[in-house]
Amino acid sequence: MTGERLAVLTGGQLAESYAKTAHGVLRYGTREVACVVDPAHTGRRAVDVVPFCASPAPVVADVAAARELGATTVLLGVAPLGGRLTEAWRASLLEALRLGMHVEAGLHTDLGADPELAAAARASGVGIRDLRAVPDDLGVPLPGPVGARVVHTVGSDCAIGKMSVGLELDRAARDRGLASVFVATGQTGVAIAGWGMAVDHVISDFVAGAADRLVREGAARGDLLWLEGQGSIHHPAYSGVTLGLLHGSSADALVLCHRAGRAAIADYPGTALPPLAEIVRGYEQAAGWVRPARVVAVALNTAGLDDAAAQRAVDEAAAETGLVTDDVVRSGAGRVLDAVLAALDR
Amino acid sequence: MTGERLAVLTGGQLAESYAKTAHGVLRYGTREVACVVDPAHTGRRAVDVVPFCASPAPVVADVAAARELGATTVLLGVAPLGGRLTEAWRASLLEALRLGMHVEAGLHTDLGADPELAAAARASGVGIRDLRAVPDDLGVPLPGPVGARVVHTVGSDCAIGKMSVGLELDRAARDRGLASVFVATGQTGVAIAGWGMAVDHVISDFVAGAADRLVREGAARGDLLWLEGQGSIHHPAYSGVTLGLLHGSSADALVLCHRAGRAAIADYPGTALPPLAEIVRGYEQAAGWVRPARVVAVALNTAGLDDAAAQRAVDEAAAETGLVTDDVVRSGAGRVLDAVLAALDR
Repeated sequence: MTGERLAVLTGGQLAESYAKTAHGVLRYGTREVACVVDPAHTGRRAVDVVPFCASPAPVVADVAAARELGATTVLLGVAPLGGRLTEAWRASLLEALRLGMHVEAGLHTDLGADPELAAAARASGVGIRDLRAVPDDLGVPLPGPVGARVVHTVGSDCAIGKMSVGLELDRAARDRGLASVFVATGQTGVAIAGWGMAVDHVISDFVAGAADRLVREGAARGDLLWLEGQGSIHHPAYSGVTLGLLHGSSADALVLCHRAGRAAIADYPGTALPPLAEIVRGYEQAAGWVRPARVVAVALNTAGLDDAAAQRAVDEAAAETGLVTDDVVRSGAGRVLDAVLAALDR
Repeated sequence: MTGERLAVLTGGQLAESYAKTAHGVLRYGTREVACVVDPAHTGRRAVDVVPFCASPAPVVADVAAARELGATTVLLGVAPLGGRLTEAWRASLLEALRLGMHVEAGLHTDLGADPELAAAARASGVGIRDLRAVPDDLGVPLPGPVGARVVHTVGSDCAIGKMSVGLELDRAARDRGLASVFVATGQTGVAIAGWGMAVDHVISDFVAGAADRLVREGAARGDLLWLEGQGSIHHPAYSGVTLGLLHGSSADALVLCHRAGRAAIADYPGTALPPLAEIVRGYEQAAGWVRPARVVAVALNTAGLDDAAAQRAVDEAAAETGLVTDDVVRSGAGRVLDAVLAALDR
């Protein structure tokens, strides 16, 4: 949105892990952030509260102060347990709407269907954006080339960094002057990028069609796309989303994301993960059922390990798979990006 | 419904594989069929157009003629790619509602939410039944054993007979006195069996959870379950549904369904199918990512071939895969059932 300036609402929880949407937007977002709204940290900068975010955005006390700083859109930056709208959030969002700011959230509560909020939005002529809403005109993948190079970050499990890896690689590619675009497939990614689709909320027949639509939209924005992966081919509950995305993505190359030491699916400890090289082969076999694509690098999440242990883990994964391996958050995305670009040029 | 008489709408496509809902209801259904509505085949009997259906129902030109024959309910008998309501279908269904007939369909379009169709239904005091309606409390697969032996009919493509194979095997098993249950996962199967779930209409995150719920419901009805497969791991649009079902099914054995001579995905002619033995390996690899299961027999659809050519096709598939192979519609389900039961007992 032209002229858009975000106010990220964290309601006292900016330092907590529940504020992961805020953290993601502050660290990776390409949208301009006017401020954070958090009465517990007023007067400081975001980076002082959460160094990981690396954002100098000021923290203000309420949405009225955010409006004075020129914020045009209030983003709910907290994913509370249960995902329901609380009365405190309702009051803040209502005030934001009455002050003429758009509201954006990814709760389970459908804010647009809330009569009070909807009436306030109408009265101010502003919008309520549900980050989990999906289009109602989805279908199957279209024929014909996408018109961009597509790199898909796939993973051995959920919540191991597929989104972060895509965002780091996108940023590194843009830093090199490439027309690179991160393509979000989950609600936090949508909040960060400002567009995309939560494909896990699409009906199952249309997952591949949703991926296809996303990469075609991405191709209108750039020619090197990083399509966020979801789930894992080894995940007992979510593998269908994973394969639908993989087959709908028209991927030219895959980057396998893995958490060092992860030996079983976290949600299903009885489901053991095979060795990393076998996971690589599995993804390549799966892609080849429709359209061949190779895993061209491994992005290893070594969070929690000291530098020496992290390096050992990276070296072991590289030796096992024969692929360029790195932790792109710890060490920068340069080596993995080099490997991807070299593979795309082959 | 007491006194119910179905008119099955196929709109010129009665002879095509897309009319699989019509074919299934005509061959396997227990509900009375007054007629088929298809202007391309008016004046003939269903069995003359599609011998497989074995139904003497007359084919009439339009829904008005169906009404005159005493039809009380119009069932949309075609499953178009993408599952959307076309303008031609809309006109026919609207006329049916205005003539006082119920409408039953399994599109992704929610007919009951369509203002024009809903108004027509209200005005005539008739109902619109959505065969694809799904529960709103689905989740992920439950832990623990299902409590039944599960055989899953998987396939190389859509609309090649996965449902029919399951229905034939179920019927043959019940004829032998086994506590056998067909578990429907698509709208046609639901129309035939009277229960089940159209898993392709479930939110993608919950496909495996839906499969798990279905086999647990099946286990309350019998101890040998035939879980209908959907799509194909090779289908560019629907492979996610296929894998979600496979991983959610807790399958003990797989039966691979294939159309003799099919060399590419019908909806995507650019997507070539590999040799049959490779499709078998693909399904076994995919199952093994979560829970190993073997393909224990091949059910070959030889429709359209003469007996000699059909036998050659069966022999070739058996030689290539090393598996018991038969056309269970043409030759009866006995040999494939024997192979499945022997495998389950190993």
